[in-house]
Amino acid sequence: MEKPLILVTNDDGITAPGIRKLIQIVNSIEGAEVYVVAPDSPQSAMGHAITINSTLHVEEMRLKNGAVREWACSGTPVDCVKLACDKILPRKPDLCVSGINHGSNSSINVIYSGTMSAAVEAGIEGVPAIGFSLSDFSYHADFDAAEKFIKRIIIETLKNGLPDGVVLNVNIPNLPEKEIKGIRVCRQARARWDEEFEERLDPRGRKYYWLTGKFVNMDGGEDTDEWALDNGFISVVPVQFDLTAHQTMPWINQWNLNEKKNKNEK
Amino acid sequence: MEKPLILVTNDDGITAPGIRKLIQIVNSIEGAEVYVVAPDSPQSAMGHAITINSTLHVEEMRLKNGAVREWACSGTPVDCVKLACDKILPRKPDLCVSGINHGSNSSINVIYSGTMSAAVEAGIEGVPAIGFSLSDFSYHADFDAAEKFIKRIIIETLKNGLPDGVVLNVNIPNLPEKEIKGIRVCRQARARWDEEFEERLDPRGRKYYWLTGKFVNMDGGEDTDEWALDNGFISVVPVQFDLTAHQTMPWINQWNLNEKKNKNEK
Repeated sequence: MEKPLILVTNDDGITAPGIRKLIQIVNSIEGAEVYVVAPDSPQSAMGHAITINSTLHVEEMRLKNGAVREWACSGTPVDCVKLACDKILPRKPDLCVSGINHGSNSSINVIYSGTMSAAVEAGIEGVPAIGFSLSDFSYHADFDAAEKFIKRIIIETLKNGLPDGVVLNVNIPNLPEKEIKGIRVCRQARARWDEEFEERLDPRGRKYYWLTGKFVNMDGGEDTDEWALDNGFISVVPVQFDLTAHQTMPWINQWNLNEKKNKNEK
Repeated sequence: MEKPLILVTNDDGITAPGIRKLIQIVNSIEGAEVYVVAPDSPQSAMGHAITINSTLHVEEMRLKNGAVREWACSGTPVDCVKLACDKILPRKPDLCVSGINHGSNSSINVIYSGTMSAAVEAGIEGVPAIGFSLSDFSYHADFDAAEKFIKRIIIETLKNGLPDGVVLNVNIPNLPEKEIKGIRVCRQARARWDEEFEERLDPRGRKYYWLTGKFVNMDGGEDTDEWALDNGFISVVPVQFDLTAHQTMPWINQWNLNEKKNKNEK
């Protein structure tokens, strides 16, 4: 690819250290034209939310470690990708990278993640896309350790492309560079959050709740993203947005859903 | 099932005509104990968003056509399901029904839909779940026509159960009862939205945007939900939340992702 046009976005907001690092990495790819369209404020856990009942604002800005051009948008990560493709970019991008997220988006977290929803939205629009996340929630997370791995995944994706309907979910263990053992292609582990709402009283005596939870990995497989991360590997899960459980269709077809199938019913 | 405990939620808010109809339908199932935990305001297009940076409030209320007990929650549809399961319901429900949504959630809309995300969240928690949507966005949509079909799908789901990791996405064409031809088990059509942002100026001369779009069905198949709806059928798509594109893994494993694979690199 001669001069790849790369869109960068995230869900932690345009000034977050994770996206600044990702911009620096894509800027170092020879010939890459880098555009950033990212939320103007943190949008974690927004899933695939879009803004339909409110207006959207977008502001061009210049930041340190800047890209060719950068915009801060008032909407969700998915809004950013839509607005970039429809109103901002000079042409359809060759790649969309989202992140680096402050915190893991492995296993079931792919569903809640704004980072991954931005990548999925790019995929829906026919743009190869990758979401990157580091297993460290802190603002001061060390994004340097994984730099060369991230660059390699981006270059390989630019070179190989991705099939229609598939994007990549990349998660990086929180380890020094020397301790990262390599990159593994994985499946999404079967896991969930056991929610534990914390109940409090506001100053007027009214109950309110904070959502907290405990992560439960129900999957003993060694081919999962959780296993890879626990064992020092970077996980790459190909993610699809055809959600049809195809294998279940014949079974549901045997249900008594239609009157004709049962002569005794009127 | 002796006395099924049924959780009802939606994304249009607890007073929307669609959920009031759905409550009436589940109330008519013999022995059903019906609990409602739904957003206190419209939450359309929230996807799988959850509330982690803000507090949640929940208020018990009594409405006409009421259920056993009802709560209005300040959060997203997914928050409602989490809060219901952790704090409100007397035990794990036997079924979660979400909707009836004012507007279709067929094909790619499953990704953006708060209605379906509530159902998926229930599925993640191990509760059989169904999202219902009617292809009519208006407040005054006719939810009566599909009543007997909805009841049948609910009863069949209670009877048969659903496999782990699968929920149902049910979409109903906007037709009089006599013109609904029946129920079809379908796959999600390959489709997307061509966004068209409408640019306007605010009273201070600043640009802003409204997200609008044109639905594009790229799928000619006659086994899809779009085909079913266009041909007078109610569509039932089994939806999974293992998003792994398993079939793509061997191919990505051939990429040059790890140094060891290439002896010429240092």
